Parts: sequence; C-alpha cells; structure tokens
Amino acid sequence: MLSHVVGAAKRPTVCFRRGLQTVTLIPGDGIGPEISVAVMKIFEAAKVPIQWEERNVTAIQGPGGRWMIPPDCKESMDRTLIGLKGPLKTPIAAGHPSMNLLLRKTFDLYANVRPCVSIEGYKTPYTDVDLVTIRENTEGEYSGIEHIIVDGVVQSIKLITEDASRRIAEYAFEYARSNQRTSVTAVHKANIMRMSDGLFLRKCREVAENFKDIKFTEMYLDTVCLNMVQDPTQFDVLVMPNLYGDILSDLCAGLIGGLGVTPSGNIGANGVAIFESVHGTAPDIAGLDMANPTALLLSAVMMLRHMGMHDYGKKIETACFDTIRDKKVLTGDLGGKSKCSEFTEEICRRV
Amino acid sequence: MLSHVVGAAKRPTVCFRRGLQTVTLIPGDGIGPEISVAVMKIFEAAKVPIQWEERNVTAIQGPGGRWMIPPDCKESMDRTLIGLKGPLKTPIAAGHPSMNLLLRKTFDLYANVRPCVSIEGYKTPYTDVDLVTIRENTEGEYSGIEHIIVDGVVQSIKLITEDASRRIAEYAFEYARSNQRTSVTAVHKANIMRMSDGLFLRKCREVAENFKDIKFTEMYLDTVCLNMVQDPTQFDVLVMPNLYGDILSDLCAGLIGGLGVTPSGNIGANGVAIFESVHGTAPDIAGLDMANPTALLLSAVMMLRHMGMHDYGKKIETACFDTIRDKKVLTGDLGGKSKCSEFTEEICRRV
Ligand SMILES: CC(C)[C@H](C(=O)O)[C@@H](O)C(=O)O
Ligand SMILES: CC(C)[C@H](C(=O)O)[C@@H](O)C(=O)O
Repeated sequence: MLSHVVGAAKRPTVCFRRGLQTVTLIPGDGIGPEISVAVMKIFEAAKVPIQWEERNVTAIQGPGGRWMIPPDCKESMDRTLIGLKGPLKTPIAAGHPSMNLLLRKTFDLYANVRPCVSIEGYKTPYTDVDLVTIRENTEGEYSGIEHIIVDGVVQSIKLITEDASRRIAEYAFEYARSNQRTSVTAVHKANIMRMSDGLFLRKCREVAENFKDIKFTEMYLDTVCLNMVQDPTQFDVLVMPNLYGDILSDLCAGLIGGLGVTPSGNIGANGVAIFESVHGTAPDIAGLDMANPTALLLSAVMMLRHMGMHDYGKKIETACFDTIRDKKVLTGDLGGKSKCSEFTEEICRRV
Repeated sequence: MLSHVVGAAKRPTVCFRRGLQTVTLIPGDGIGPEISVAVMKIFEAAKVPIQWEERNVTAIQGPGGRWMIPPDCKESMDRTLIGLKGPLKTPIAAGHPSMNLLLRKTFDLYANVRPCVSIEGYKTPYTDVDLVTIRENTEGEYSGIEHIIVDGVVQSIKLITEDASRRIAEYAFEYARSNQRTSVTAVHKANIMRMSDGLFLRKCREVAENFKDIKFTEMYLDTVCLNMVQDPTQFDVLVMPNLYGDILSDLCAGLIGGLGVTPSGNIGANGVAIFESVHGTAPDIAGLDMANPTALLLSAVMMLRHMGMHDYGKKIETACFDTIRDKKVLTGDLGGKSKCSEFTEEICRRV
C-alpha cells in the first residue's frame, strides 16, 4: 500500500473556494496533457473536492538573466501550496536549467519522496518490494557550481550543509514514524567523501537519537545497490544525498515496473509540495491516446494523502490497482492493448 | 565466457626467472590468506608457469606524513608489473586512506574492469547477463579534495580531466574491439554536471569517432540503473567516471550473484595491473575454511588472460564453472555445505 503522511502538525492553511481546495496543475509537455486529463477525469468520478488551476511552465529569463518559472505559476503555487505536475522536457542544449530542478529550487522542496511498492498483477523479477527513497533535493552534486581550473581540468562542487542534512534526516524519521515504518537506512560514501558525506551521516546519526522507536542503519551506496538487486525486501525507508537519491529511486522504480507506475512527491516546509510523475514526455506517442497515466495518478494519490484526504486517496488507488490486477483493460506499456482513455474509464467505473 | 584481452601491443616485458613469470601476491586481510592459498593450489594443479612473490600491504606513513604502501610491495610490483590481491580491511576510523585506493593510485591503475557474466547453475533473477563495466579509477569524486567553507558547509570536489577521460574512453573502446564486443555505452549525468560530466562525455564521443566498428551510445546514470534491473542483457561495455563505476559495478555484480563470484582488474599503462576480489574481508569466517575463493580465482583468470596465458585461463575458468554448475561441492554462500578446501580440491581435480 502506498502511504504518505508526514508532518500533520505542519499542514498548510490551503485556500478554499466554494468548499473546494485548489491545486495547481502543471500538465507539462508531450504526453503530459493527456495523462493530466486522465487524472482529472478520475478525480471527477471519485468526486474529490478539489478544483484545478492549470499553469504552464516554460523557462523565463528574469532581470539579470536569471532563469525562473513563469510568474503566474509561481503566484498560483504560492497561494495553493499544492501542485501536481506532468513531465517537462529539458533538452541539455536549451541553455536553461532543468525546469524540474528549478521548480524544486523555487519552492525549496527539500525532500523527494518515492515509494516503491510491488504492484499485484504486474510481474517483475521481484515481489513484495515495499520501500521508500527519501532524497535530499536541494544541494549535493546538484549545486550547479562548476569551474574550469585550467584547460582540460574541470571541477564540480558537491555541497553538503549541516542544515539541509539535518532537515532531510528529520523528514525521513518523521516519515517513517507517521507511516508505521520501522527502519531508516542512511545511504552514503563517507569512506570516500569523508567530510561531505561524513557530515550528512553525522546528522543522520544525531537525528536517529531522537527516534529510538525507529531502527537506524547506515550503508555504503554501492552496497545498497548490490543488496537492492539481490533482495529489496530488506529495505524500508532510505535517506540520502541528492545524486544518490536520483540513482537509487530510478533503480527501485525499475524493480517494480519502471517510471510508468511509480509516484513521486517533492515536499517543502509549511506543507508546500509538488507531486509529479518522473517518467519522460514520450514525444513519440504524445497525442495518440496511448500513454499510461498510472504514475501521475499515483502521484495524485500521494497528494491526496498529503492533503489529509485519505479516503479519496484509498478509493482511487484501489481502483487503479484493481484495474491493473484484472489485466483486462491495460495500456500497451502495461502489457495490454487499451487506449489511455479506456484505461481511464475503467478506473472511473471502479471508483 | 569471461574474456579479457586488451592492448596486446602494450604487453609488458615481465621478468622471467627459471622460465617462470613472477606475480606479486597480496593475500590481504580476513579471509584473504585462505582464498589466496586456494588460488595458489589451483594454479599449481593447472601447472601454470608462474611463481608468486608474497607481499603484505599495510598503511605506512612516509616523510611529510604521506600515506604509502610498504616499500617492499612497491618494489615487487615495479618489477613484476602484475599483482593479485585479496581483500584489505579499511576502517574509516583508521585515519589513512583505503589501501585499495592507495594501490590504484600508486601504480596509476586508471581502468577498473569488471566483467559480469551470468554463471550457469547459480540461480539469480537474471539470466544471460554478459556485460563489462569500465570505471575511471583515478579522479572524479575520488579526488580526495574537500573543504569546510564555513561552519556547517562542506564541499567535495569532483575532478574531471580531459586526459583521464580520453584515456579511459580509449581503453573502453580498445577493450570492446579486442574482446569481440559490439557496443560501448558512456554513463553520465551531464544534464546536471554539465561541465565535468560534459567533458567526460565529449571525450567519449571523440574517441568513438575512431572506433566506427563499435556502436556508441550515451545514457544517464539513473536511466542505466533503471534499465539495468529491468533488462541487463541490453548492455555490453559501459564506461563511466569513478563513482558511477563504483555503484554500477556493484549493482551488476548483484545481478549475477554478488561480489563472491565477480572478478575485477585494475589496469594501468605499460601493462601494469592488479587483479583483485572486491568482496570484504569477512572477519567473522576468517580462518574457518568456509570462504569462497571464486572471486579471487576468476580475478586470477583475468590476470592470466592479461598476461597472454589464455589456455591456462580457460582451463581454470572451465573447472571453476563446471564445479559450480555441478552443485555437488559448493561453499555455503553458493548454497552448498563444503569447505573452502574441498571446493578448491574439486576444482584442482578438474583442471
Ligand atoms: C530530469 C532530471 C534533471 C532529474 C534529476 O536528475 O533529478 C530526474 O532524473 C529526476 O530524478 O527527477
Ligand atoms: C573499498 C572502497 C574504497 C572501494 C571504492 O569505493 O572504490 C570499493 O567499493 C570498490 O569498488 O573497489
């Protein structure tokens, strides 16, 4: 079961209009719009009391050449505090940073949370996977600071701070506690990066002291990768610096069926959060009614739980998993022959 | 089939004594000595014309406090050019760098080569894995350069140079060509570390131009991890910066049965090389005749191929794989009940 409850005490004051809570919807590029429509239809069928405020995200250059997200999207998020986002294209050649990263940065979404849970009926070499990767989302190898030292010699800076390390460690332990999970593993390479990963690890140890009900272990990243493919069921909650999270979350997604079926949430302070599908824009099938909306839908389910709407979340999640287990109406990537709209209708029928 | 032939033209002039080639043997810690004895016995049974020169490796502090390997080991390696090494313990707390890393650095062993090939009879969730990770072994995140910027803010420096990137790319393509492999994939995060991984990637592309017979692809590290656990058979030779290689080589080892059965070679210029098992020292079972010598033995087989002794390599490899396939005499970690010495004798019987 996907579950996601954290920091109930920190729940935001979200704006209400006509009794409906508003969520900023960023449909994104490629298949983004059609999977967003699928999610909206399912939410409507389930009578979820939220309304969507759609915003586009393209790279905008502000004063001084600084890259930013469009002001109307910023304004919407600042007001609603909650976003749901489809895939955004980020060509390396575009010259601007990844818009996914810019969104995480703009709203200081410091925790990237990806539950990986085996989906009944969707066969992979693994069963009973049930773990959550919690990735520090603001610094590390993603600092963006790089220099040419001399011709042919380049350095990239990995930045680790005490504050960000403590914050993510606290998030991981609080997450574990409020989701009835029993252990947290800190993933690191402090044998190599003794100062930076050393600092990260030290903060995890310190925070662990305050969570005696949660078992704490530490493990080298390479060892985690090895153990993960041999027996992922040994893991529960994993917490780690940015790049390691990028790698491990994709690896774990692979264990349960790939990015088409794994949800993701980016969580900030004071309840602000953006939930997103982390697969690509799949331009080759965009507009052809072939896309699989599962990852975005399950991200929306995470969002509902984050907003305290557990019953709606459960209802939609069950309808989605039942549809997959039944194997009758599935999109191509899930092994079926149905269109995105048919898969969506089947879920609607069940909610 | 494990194969390993690179740079025949660069083959070293190794010293001969009474017709025997000398190899520096670093038995290492924990189970190191007993698995080294196993390998020596099997080499003797196979009548391999080499003699061993045993050396211990412990951390020594030279003038100015610089950590170094013992002079007699350095002298031996400088003369024999070829080493075989068991596991070395490296407690973080010891204050000195990992001796494994120091060895790689001392002899400028710039290419870490780890073939991962499914072993018949040893069941894992994957079959038909047959790939090789080639890891840049001298720089990147392993530069060892770290600073405290201000209290609570630490940076680690990832160093990427044009020379080291070109060198490892050339090694990978030459390896592919001389081992009848058809593709090389460069693994990177140039979407995030645009300058450093960008430089690495550019060098790979340039070198690829000179190897039109080898297919070249590039892939993000996270995508490789995801695809690797979904279908490892799509990969052939992979080349990557230091840390990514650390992670991916362990992940791939996990796919075929773990570090107990995967060989590794560290290759430098002019034929110098150290082959090593990359599992730990397993202090809990050290001296109990329970260890599995397979990883060290297969590393020794890589070594024989590197030295041009293909027939001896083939003979020993076949005896080892046959023993595993037969399932009658196996160590505990391989699912059997036999002692290290019994497993060794069984292989000796077959060579
Ligand atoms: C799109 C890309 C910049 C991003 C990352 O590297 O973090 C992605 O891989 C992710 O995991 O969300
Ligand atoms: C022992 C350790 C320093 C080493 C590394 O990180 O490179 C190991 O994991 C390896 O892969 O050889």
